Amino acid sequence: MAEGDLRKTKRSQLKRLHERASYERDRVNEIIDATLMGHFAYVIDGTPHIIPTFQWREDNRVFWHGSSASRFLRQVVGQQVSLAITNLDGFVLARSAFHHSVNYRSVVLYGEAEVVAETDKVEKLRNFLDGVFPGRWETLRPINKQEIKATTVLSMAIDEGSAKVRSGHPIDDDEDYALPIWAGIVPTETTLLEPIADPRNLDGVALPDHVANFKLRGK
Amino acid sequence: MAEGDLRKTKRSQLKRLHERASYERDRVNEIIDATLMGHFAYVIDGTPHIIPTFQWREDNRVFWHGSSASRFLRQVVGQQVSLAITNLDGFVLARSAFHHSVNYRSVVLYGEAEVVAETDKVEKLRNFLDGVFPGRWETLRPINKQEIKATTVLSMAIDEGSAKVRSGHPIDDDEDYALPIWAGIVPTETTLLEPIADPRNLDGVALPDHVANFKLRGK
Repeated sequence: MAEGDLRKTKRSQLKRLHERASYERDRVNEIIDATLMGHFAYVIDGTPHIIPTFQWREDNRVFWHGSSASRFLRQVVGQQVSLAITNLDGFVLARSAFHHSVNYRSVVLYGEAEVVAETDKVEKLRNFLDGVFPGRWETLRPINKQEIKATTVLSMAIDEGSAKVRSGHPIDDDEDYALPIWAGIVPTETTLLEPIADPRNLDGVALPDHVANFKLRGK
Repeated sequence: MAEGDLRKTKRSQLKRLHERASYERDRVNEIIDATLMGHFAYVIDGTPHIIPTFQWREDNRVFWHGSSASRFLRQVVGQQVSLAITNLDGFVLARSAFHHSVNYRSVVLYGEAEVVAETDKVEKLRNFLDGVFPGRWETLRPINKQEIKATTVLSMAIDEGSAKVRSGHPIDDDEDYALPIWAGIVPTETTLLEPIADPRNLDGVALPDHVANFKLRGK
């Protein structure tokens, strides 16, 4: 599949039916990068399963990790998964119930879950943590062999899927604009509250810059 | 399945392996009610699919809705679905990379998607809208037959699944508490910004109380 073109697949064609679909790779990447939380769908014995987990992107792949004992991680290796990454941006209040909506940015990807090689795991985990809190990794007690073994890192290529975005005010029926009904948007945002130090921190340990300056992605 | 008991199923037993799992119906309902956004997993021709959509609860059922032309809604009728409802509550920073975590409340449900009867659709849609913005429904241009026909409402029973919750500070290895590393929590919250009136609102139309007093669920 050509770089920058996510549309040349059956499932993306399916998605093309939606008016708000967008297939540009940059738009897809921007939405992936804006949100850590993803939801993975997978199939076991014909039954759909779903699990929320953090994800991160490196180039044209999405990564996620967890306990090597996780049923989800063990079961999905080599299997098809579908990943949704969703940002809610606001409530859209229209003049009729029917035209109420939400503003959002979302991506749905399809791909095969692949195991990251033992030799690459630490680098990926470091990329993940430092991607959220730049520089934190090297301030920590170093990761050890048992921890590396106990952690599985998976990835999937970003080459099948689509982005959907809605923004702006409601789109009402023409005649409804004459009605004295309040319409508009109530924007939503995920915000950070003040960091709370662990009471077991040693005396004199200061809040590090990577926490003090921490910002959610896409802000 | 007995009211108040979600554990007597195969899949809930699967979930029982997780230390943070919780099976009490009240806890499950509380998490469902705290968040509008849900992610549904479903299977088409053996392939996992996932879609984000708002959900709401009435008694022991979860409801969701969408366009009657939606492939998702048409395809899942009578099919098994899995629904995840996830609240991210914060980042948990430990003294080792391995013990970093997130605080969250999440529910995963399994069930069969059932169509809400034509005669019950309007009541359900009203319950949904008024559940978010109390009293708004009756201020709107009334829903019409075409809109009702163009909307599908689905539901599933809440009787198989589990809740998982993590809260509080990191759990580090005993010896790591002696290290001069900042550990703690960065709480996150979904917040509402100031409502933005549609520029096409008629002059003199005031912000209604159901918008001015709007609060996200679970706050």
